[in-house]
Amino acid sequence: MILTVTPNPALDVSYELDRLAPGESLRVVRVGARAGGKGVNVARVAAAMGRPVFAMGLLGGTTGEQVEADLGAGGVPHRFLPGPGETRTTVNIHARDTDQTTLLNEEGPATDAAEWARLVQAVRPVAHDADVGVVSGSLPPGLTDEAIAELLTAAPTYQGWIVDARGPALMAALAAGPAVVKPNLAELRETVEADDVLTAARALQRRGARLVVVSDGPRGIVAVHPDGRAISARLPKPLRGNATGAGDALSAGIADGLREGLTLATLLRRAVAWSAAAVLAPLAGSVDPDDVARLEPTVILEEMACRP
Amino acid sequence: MILTVTPNPALDVSYELDRLAPGESLRVVRVGARAGGKGVNVARVAAAMGRPVFAMGLLGGTTGEQVEADLGAGGVPHRFLPGPGETRTTVNIHARDTDQTTLLNEEGPATDAAEWARLVQAVRPVAHDADVGVVSGSLPPGLTDEAIAELLTAAPTYQGWIVDARGPALMAALAAGPAVVKPNLAELRETVEADDVLTAARALQRRGARLVVVSDGPRGIVAVHPDGRAISARLPKPLRGNATGAGDALSAGIADGLREGLTLATLLRRAVAWSAAAVLAPLAGSVDPDDVARLEPTVILEEMACRP
Repeated sequence: MILTVTPNPALDVSYELDRLAPGESLRVVRVGARAGGKGVNVARVAAAMGRPVFAMGLLGGTTGEQVEADLGAGGVPHRFLPGPGETRTTVNIHARDTDQTTLLNEEGPATDAAEWARLVQAVRPVAHDADVGVVSGSLPPGLTDEAIAELLTAAPTYQGWIVDARGPALMAALAAGPAVVKPNLAELRETVEADDVLTAARALQRRGARLVVVSDGPRGIVAVHPDGRAISARLPKPLRGNATGAGDALSAGIADGLREGLTLATLLRRAVAWSAAAVLAPLAGSVDPDDVARLEPTVILEEMACRP
Repeated sequence: MILTVTPNPALDVSYELDRLAPGESLRVVRVGARAGGKGVNVARVAAAMGRPVFAMGLLGGTTGEQVEADLGAGGVPHRFLPGPGETRTTVNIHARDTDQTTLLNEEGPATDAAEWARLVQAVRPVAHDADVGVVSGSLPPGLTDEAIAELLTAAPTYQGWIVDARGPALMAALAAGPAVVKPNLAELRETVEADDVLTAARALQRRGARLVVVSDGPRGIVAVHPDGRAISARLPKPLRGNATGAGDALSAGIADGLREGLTLATLLRRAVAWSAAAVLAPLAGSVDPDDVARLEPTVILEEMACRP
């Protein structure tokens, strides 16, 4: 089973506008609302692909109730503990004229160490029975950068944890030896100073990470293995669509590859196909298994020549 | 007592951003949420000025509960009937770099004639004891343009009703003889074809309106009385601030003038002062009585020369 932990879940509200004109009073032509937060999206993608998943985290207030109701309606097994304040909302604005998406991200409710410790305690027995864990997304205000390392240390899973975090929270998580970290290129650059991706990835490995997967949007991913191999994986040509949530589908694909004990090359092929299928899907956190089946054989893998 | 009816109330969420950059993922640096919808703002302004008010309308779902809780916390007497779907949210985005405000307006839940009729029946006995009524804001989808006229006809108040509506809903309301209609210049132009404000105002009066008050933002208001007088009212110089809700404070000031039986000139002075005080207040639906006291004597009134 794939276990996901979402430290800062959200109610994802999506607004469709004819245009986003700053300073004006605009009519929202279509409204959607669903459970969100990066770990929740990972769980939803895995569930859409028919994989066993379990989603955990903290929820509070009326938006928390809406998130929980949506997870139930979507058939995603979950257990969220009552959290501190009101669960945050994120507003995802799609403007039809430019086809651009603008994300407004609330910070989330202040969370204290005791609440996080309660969550870690609740995760521990579930992690014991999990194949792999994914902890994904921002930390709510109030937690220290060490919160992810505490979780990983207290709640080991069979294949370890995938960490999707950035900046100081990512750096602090490395000490707990995550199986995978998966920054995108911008997140990697804001976390480590280095001239190139391989050097930056190896810096993360020296601090404790095993596999480092760096995503670069339509240009695909680069995976750097602790044994020195570096493999790039991409589609023959970029897809048009909604990139929101593509990173979460990538995490889900990596988690599924670890769960099934795939070789690195096969795992990367799967992860890129899931991520690409998410670009084709209308909403973050969804993929069509038919798209995955069609895209997976087209993924191009290249061993990169490099000094270990 | 001033009775307000809000056909399409909202939870007004306000987001403070450093900048509103379309296409980017942006951090919300401050979040607020309060009861909204134009009629609700009218009630809140009147309550802030210490006037007797009562707010009515339809509310539904979790956002409806939040609206009701906020009205209770704000000390605004109210009775909202359980409405159809989930009460809408409006998102008010303030960008610090440009000081611009962008409003995202959801349409609201579909409402049917039976639900509206139940509200009208509930309003009727309250209207019987009210000095004046204000029905303000958009109609939710599902109602016909005649909904406001039905309310005015079924639930008369002592001094009549102030209608703040636009387009076909405003035109249809005229048949029920509103005491005041108060379009802004843009709304007037989209409702009536005419070369100038006076001609347009008189067209509304021929259809059944009594006093017509046309607002034009910082340039003040023009009031056209059925006896042929036209009076403009404005501040000596425009104020800087947040114009969202200034129209609702104008409605509240007009309602209060009718309630107290003020002369037209005194009523307009009050209405402009309340509206201007709302511009100085940080949030829609609030005014500081000290600002009103300071601004009211400065309002400039001018009788306009015109053919009746």
